[in-house]
Amino acid sequence: MSSIRVALFGLGPIGIGVGKVALSRPNLEVVGAVDIAPQLVGRDLGRCLGSDRDLGIEVTADAHAMLTEARPEVVLHCTQSSVEKVAPQIRVIIQHGARVVSTCEELAFPWHGERPVVKELDGLAREKGVAVLGTGINPGYAMDTVPLMLSAAAQRVDHVSVWRVQDAGLRRLPLMLKVGVGITVEEFEIRRATIGHIGLPESLRLVADGLGWTLDGTERTLEPVIADAPAKFGDISVEPGRVLGVHENIRGFISDVERIVLDLRMYAGAPDPHDATEIKGVPDLRVRIDGLHGDVCTAAVAVNCVTAVLRARPGLVTMRDLPLVSAYTKDLER
Amino acid sequence: MSSIRVALFGLGPIGIGVGKVALSRPNLEVVGAVDIAPQLVGRDLGRCLGSDRDLGIEVTADAHAMLTEARPEVVLHCTQSSVEKVAPQIRVIIQHGARVVSTCEELAFPWHGERPVVKELDGLAREKGVAVLGTGINPGYAMDTVPLMLSAAAQRVDHVSVWRVQDAGLRRLPLMLKVGVGITVEEFEIRRATIGHIGLPESLRLVADGLGWTLDGTERTLEPVIADAPAKFGDISVEPGRVLGVHENIRGFISDVERIVLDLRMYAGAPDPHDATEIKGVPDLRVRIDGLHGDVCTAAVAVNCVTAVLRARPGLVTMRDLPLVSAYTKDLER
Repeated sequence: MSSIRVALFGLGPIGIGVGKVALSRPNLEVVGAVDIAPQLVGRDLGRCLGSDRDLGIEVTADAHAMLTEARPEVVLHCTQSSVEKVAPQIRVIIQHGARVVSTCEELAFPWHGERPVVKELDGLAREKGVAVLGTGINPGYAMDTVPLMLSAAAQRVDHVSVWRVQDAGLRRLPLMLKVGVGITVEEFEIRRATIGHIGLPESLRLVADGLGWTLDGTERTLEPVIADAPAKFGDISVEPGRVLGVHENIRGFISDVERIVLDLRMYAGAPDPHDATEIKGVPDLRVRIDGLHGDVCTAAVAVNCVTAVLRARPGLVTMRDLPLVSAYTKDLER
Repeated sequence: MSSIRVALFGLGPIGIGVGKVALSRPNLEVVGAVDIAPQLVGRDLGRCLGSDRDLGIEVTADAHAMLTEARPEVVLHCTQSSVEKVAPQIRVIIQHGARVVSTCEELAFPWHGERPVVKELDGLAREKGVAVLGTGINPGYAMDTVPLMLSAAAQRVDHVSVWRVQDAGLRRLPLMLKVGVGITVEEFEIRRATIGHIGLPESLRLVADGLGWTLDGTERTLEPVIADAPAKFGDISVEPGRVLGVHENIRGFISDVERIVLDLRMYAGAPDPHDATEIKGVPDLRVRIDGLHGDVCTAAVAVNCVTAVLRARPGLVTMRDLPLVSAYTKDLER
């Protein structure tokens, strides 16, 4: 029985949250931390995580040095959303023989699209015998793993609907800015390409993959949700007619028949935040989850995947490949 | 890409349901069937499953012969609830190198109690390189896998409550008799040892196992639910004062603090049938599922575990060891 050596790669808001959860777990030993921010490099990780005591772990910008000296078994990677952008970071982790649990949204289902770097990373991970997972609350859990888990009780699945409603007004500032809280509709249209949630196509593909379905068409919409009364969320005031956030929708078709729809409302003041999935089939099934807060639960899911990723097959894997993920807190028998 | 060769072992009500689902799946090929009932032996499996056409598969009482000739990769085993009773059946399946998905309730968490036969079967399964799984809707899903899946979104789990409410009046006759629908309270007391649901201790242990918790105490209650008005369920009339079914409860403790409670109400006329789990921790989480009908969903869960059990490690395994179970309907790449 022994604890698992983990390291942190990326100490932004998500990485800090992940680090705090990892530190709280008796079966994990945090052994290293990487970030390139000048205000973090050289500082003690304990202080970066808001503790009043040192951990004796210095944050470094040199991933290679950290991986060589600290020898983590699993790296909790929380930097960017794009596979192309994180590829050099993932590559160096794999080369040091460590497994990866990443919150990079595109890694939640990396096989979507033809990206040579995905095949290259998969080959390298298989060669080195380590699993590389993309996860988080969304993508990674609420709109993909949960619907698939529900389908386990179905004799036949005809159609899957998934809804996620999040009150963006309760989230951290970067998230509010990401969904456009307070901007004008014109600004929303200009910034349309970079606004909203990243990961809906990945969740759609992960659900289809888990059902053995090959989608031959998808449709996607992204609309602003508009304020009809003045409101204030944290430091942001929203005048009537301005944007509160986003309503996104993606649908997957087989032979022109809609089979999966994922519907995400993420806006300030959204009433009744919750997650729900409805399966039409034999039998009809419905699940509702309350409490899946984005930041809090992304940190939880990432840390809870650490023990599972140790038992996963080598290569780029998805939540489908992992043994049942749970809040396991005991040392591993090995 | 090829379909998976499966065989049926046991053609009672559950086995028949499992067989129908297996037949409906394009990625499964049903290759054999075993039952000892004289009215089934020698008949064509298609007719036993209610089809109007033959499948060319004769039901046999000789498991060894079926396994030798049909060479299934996975056997769907639905006979009895006791590990001791099913051990000889499981043993012969393992010896033929087939994997097992069994609805034997005690196999859902076989490590509970000191049973030499469990260690023996585990050793044999490891030696032969096959996984042996116990599952179903309950135990196997509603009161164990679902709570663990919910815990994946928790940073910290302090307490887990699970409720299952089933209207026994909507179930098949053997289930109604099993929970005592229509009997007197005196009869209930006499038959107490054999009445009610099998699997609550297994679910409790499976939840604790998935959280890495070692329980040092358990408490269990079983009470009849009494009719206060005359009612009729199928062929059974229930007079006021007689039994409608059961209310069972099991609790797990660590150092005298309750950490897990599973509460099961299975009685005729139970209002609002549903499943729910509540986790107290960081954050608090709540899930509710509607539609988990016992017989329909046990057949679904068992068949949906077939592809997952092919990818599981050898030995006696639980739902914790399987990759994410879903209603996967495509041929396997191998």
